[in-house]
Amino acid sequence: MKKEMISEWYMHLQDVICQGLEKADGKGVFKEDVWERPEGGGGRSRILTDGNIIEKGGVNFSAVYGELPDFLKKDKELKYVSQGGDEVFFACGISIVLHPKNPMVPIIHMNLRYFEVNDNLNWFGGGIDLTPHYIVPSDAAFFHQKLKDACDQHDADYYPQYKKWADQYFFNTHRNETRGVGGIFFDRLMPGTKSVSQIFEFSKSIGEVFLPVYTHFMENNSQLPYGEAEKNWQMLRRGRYVEFNLVYDRGTRFGLETNGRIESILMSLPPLAAWEYNFTPQANSAEAFTLQHLRKEIDWLDY
Amino acid sequence: MKKEMISEWYMHLQDVICQGLEKADGKGVFKEDVWERPEGGGGRSRILTDGNIIEKGGVNFSAVYGELPDFLKKDKELKYVSQGGDEVFFACGISIVLHPKNPMVPIIHMNLRYFEVNDNLNWFGGGIDLTPHYIVPSDAAFFHQKLKDACDQHDADYYPQYKKWADQYFFNTHRNETRGVGGIFFDRLMPGTKSVSQIFEFSKSIGEVFLPVYTHFMENNSQLPYGEAEKNWQMLRRGRYVEFNLVYDRGTRFGLETNGRIESILMSLPPLAAWEYNFTPQANSAEAFTLQHLRKEIDWLDY
Repeated sequence: MKKEMISEWYMHLQDVICQGLEKADGKGVFKEDVWERPEGGGGRSRILTDGNIIEKGGVNFSAVYGELPDFLKKDKELKYVSQGGDEVFFACGISIVLHPKNPMVPIIHMNLRYFEVNDNLNWFGGGIDLTPHYIVPSDAAFFHQKLKDACDQHDADYYPQYKKWADQYFFNTHRNETRGVGGIFFDRLMPGTKSVSQIFEFSKSIGEVFLPVYTHFMENNSQLPYGEAEKNWQMLRRGRYVEFNLVYDRGTRFGLETNGRIESILMSLPPLAAWEYNFTPQANSAEAFTLQHLRKEIDWLDY
Repeated sequence: MKKEMISEWYMHLQDVICQGLEKADGKGVFKEDVWERPEGGGGRSRILTDGNIIEKGGVNFSAVYGELPDFLKKDKELKYVSQGGDEVFFACGISIVLHPKNPMVPIIHMNLRYFEVNDNLNWFGGGIDLTPHYIVPSDAAFFHQKLKDACDQHDADYYPQYKKWADQYFFNTHRNETRGVGGIFFDRLMPGTKSVSQIFEFSKSIGEVFLPVYTHFMENNSQLPYGEAEKNWQMLRRGRYVEFNLVYDRGTRFGLETNGRIESILMSLPPLAAWEYNFTPQANSAEAFTLQHLRKEIDWLDY
């Protein structure tokens, strides 16, 4: 399994997803920026703004390489052992965040990545999670069922294990809230009981689930009516999304700390977000229902 | 010098500043929330929203105490030596952030704090900095002159030293931008060549400079005209303010990590903020001028 093949597949996935999203949106067009990393590699950032359905979204691909960063050398979990010679890394992947106009359409995020250290260590990581401004259990169930189906093709343990990991990871600790209805999260999937090709096939299945799942929400939920109250609530929920990304998100913080391409990293931030002191939704409102369901360990498939 | 006296003075300063801001605003009224910290102490948060001039602002006082947090025990700079018995801390202070409606009025921040560990360690810290959406050198000079005057009453080294520290501290590293035109920043001012009373008097002078300085901007700059383009730029600059506060601000991160009162900590976030991918202002515009002057080591008093 050559890294070039993996990298090319993610790049191809970027094409497929961008074309599919443009078609479903009907107006928005992705604007591409190709960039180079001075230390090695680069990327292809694609941003869509002011579509019919998507207000702001990014579908980014990057493949970078170079000298192994210190923080990876020190990472105990990796059991990294220096071999004395040149120490290099390679990382490629795709990263997506979409902020819709209509508050009834959820925000979505997906990241899939592949990592190599020298010739003797490699792994896959990634995740996909859904952040509805308004939680609708049947929407959450639809999303989780699609993820479970994709996982189950590869290993019956994947979905329960990675669903739990997503609940832990996509969590705003200081708010004591999950970011949304979760999804799956996995990291450091190394060859062992499964081969690199088998793990890659799993990563591909997750990648292929993205477009049908999100275009489903684009088509259905964007028809739902909303008013000023729903837009205000959307702005507050986007504020929480900003909090998660700047305080906790590993990819973002890694990027900020290692001199990544800032505009590509921060494409995940919403076009507009609000903070209101001590906002409390009315009892029994859809907003209150959402807050009550921003919790870990909800089994959306058996809600 | 009793800690109660210091604490009461900051509380009194909160009253004076709130009254002065309400008077200058002419419409907005501070809403007070008194809160208690389960582990000891509490605070008095005061938030003003939808004033004539101030869109959202907080003037918070707190005085908390309890068991010494681990991170302070491990702090090498403190040269902390355990004495075997109960180990306690006390911290009090005032924290202010004001977001104006008119983009021609700058955002302002001030924090003054006093800290005690057991009976044998105590210090003052704080800072005040100005974040204009549009940098105007004469405004920056006015602000820095007032700070220098306040500093010079106590020590001729204070202003140059703490101005430099502010340039280092109020810096968005990932953007390679200062937050605004800086101000002063100081921390761990312990009794030594100066007594606790002398340092306290310095802290008081800074506290007393806040109201006349900011009401000057409220009165003068809020008369300046602006349109949609200036509001859009203000939203983008507020986005940067959010980035600084969530990624770098020590007070915010400390609060998030130690289970502080979230709504009081995050009152610093703006009512509304925006992120636009790769926004580049027109050459020779006021926005471009501002970006060019978000740099360290500008001597605003000799610009």
